[in-house]
Amino acid sequence: MCQLLGMNANVPTDVMFSFTGLAHRAEEHKDGFGIAFFEDRGLRQFIDHQSARSSAVAELVKRYPIKSGNVVAHIRKATQGRVALENTHPFVRELWGRYWVFAHNGDLKAWRPPLHGAFRPVGGTDSEHAFCWLMQELAKAHAAVPSIEELTHTLRELLPCPAAQGSFNMLLSNGQALWAHGATNLWSLERAHPFGAAKLADEDVTVDFGRHTSPDDRVAIVATEPLTAGEPWRAFAPGELRVFQHGTPVAAN
Amino acid sequence: MCQLLGMNANVPTDVMFSFTGLAHRAEEHKDGFGIAFFEDRGLRQFIDHQSARSSAVAELVKRYPIKSGNVVAHIRKATQGRVALENTHPFVRELWGRYWVFAHNGDLKAWRPPLHGAFRPVGGTDSEHAFCWLMQELAKAHAAVPSIEELTHTLRELLPCPAAQGSFNMLLSNGQALWAHGATNLWSLERAHPFGAAKLADEDVTVDFGRHTSPDDRVAIVATEPLTAGEPWRAFAPGELRVFQHGTPVAAN
Repeated sequence: MCQLLGMNANVPTDVMFSFTGLAHRAEEHKDGFGIAFFEDRGLRQFIDHQSARSSAVAELVKRYPIKSGNVVAHIRKATQGRVALENTHPFVRELWGRYWVFAHNGDLKAWRPPLHGAFRPVGGTDSEHAFCWLMQELAKAHAAVPSIEELTHTLRELLPCPAAQGSFNMLLSNGQALWAHGATNLWSLERAHPFGAAKLADEDVTVDFGRHTSPDDRVAIVATEPLTAGEPWRAFAPGELRVFQHGTPVAAN
Repeated sequence: MCQLLGMNANVPTDVMFSFTGLAHRAEEHKDGFGIAFFEDRGLRQFIDHQSARSSAVAELVKRYPIKSGNVVAHIRKATQGRVALENTHPFVRELWGRYWVFAHNGDLKAWRPPLHGAFRPVGGTDSEHAFCWLMQELAKAHAAVPSIEELTHTLRELLPCPAAQGSFNMLLSNGQALWAHGATNLWSLERAHPFGAAKLADEDVTVDFGRHTSPDDRVAIVATEPLTAGEPWRAFAPGELRVFQHGTPVAAN
């Protein structure tokens, strides 16, 4: 199964990826990985369709001191689309002068909604097709860049469509907020000051909360599985959309 | 001045970037660098707005065994737009289910043509604005993905517009061909089998022709300045468009 990881924070926050664990699980997650992270409006994307065990890009990401307010990462086990660079999540498009980043865990089977707008898939996955459809429908719903609340409202109307076609665990970010939609496996955790020396860590991912010292610092994490024991991870209900801005959940409306 | 480098080859070809020389020239090219290279339809993009001297991404690119049929690279000396990740070339957009990569060397001053289509700049450079305009006009000119010849014809009609507004040395690729437009400083070179042991090299860039052994292998290079002495580099005339496909110039029409 693919693994999703998202982070939203109110100040640029360290995320470190260790592929030590991934190398052990390379058989399971051999079909590539990707991470995109925003620095203000700018975006970095590191993707590879090779196993993290042998990837030069994985080596970089392992050492790269990522500091970002919005991160979307994905480790792929191919279900649709051949193992190729163009099928590697997360996918990126531009809309309203902002980059949008999307990653999906699940299987939408034969769902291929009509694409008559400005967004077309480059690869052959159900995921990228669904992303293009989402971008198309967002573009149709708003003439210019809407507020986070308006975007959330529109996404609440749109997401039941793909969700009805299969499993649609999804992360979406435009660098201002993180939208997370649960289907079968998705969890989130919010943490605030004081972080103490605690680290959120498994073999693959470390989010270093300990470096934050400001009383106002807040971080939200979304992951396919809880990354720690003994912390208040909250499972998503099927069809649930959660929105995080400045490291804090945006109240449902 | 910014530096452009483009490569088009008929088989995936090695390009190695050495930042040894760049580090020496860091004062001149301190405002970031970027490289995008296609693997089939897929695209990798490595960008950084830090000096190549201190960038972790530069370290990766230096070691990364890039094998690609289409490469667009850029080293930035900021003339417009602040030094930030979102202002770092090359820029990427999707059109007709293909990624398009663009890099520009020059200054378009106050030229900001109306953008009423699906492409908007994320950053604040004249270059990204011009790229969005080009994508918009290409999208308007063709309902579906045109041939390389049709695209070249449309670009010949469009490029005089930005070219009249300042200096517009430009590289554009969709993974199938490389379009290069000269204004003040642009040169190209084509090489074919037998490559012998010759390497195209300066302090910053190595294209390893020597590894190619097939009689059919062809590579075209476009650069702001000739990278070697004693080879038939051809300067672009102001306003000249050259198109390369499969490592070979496409005849002007």
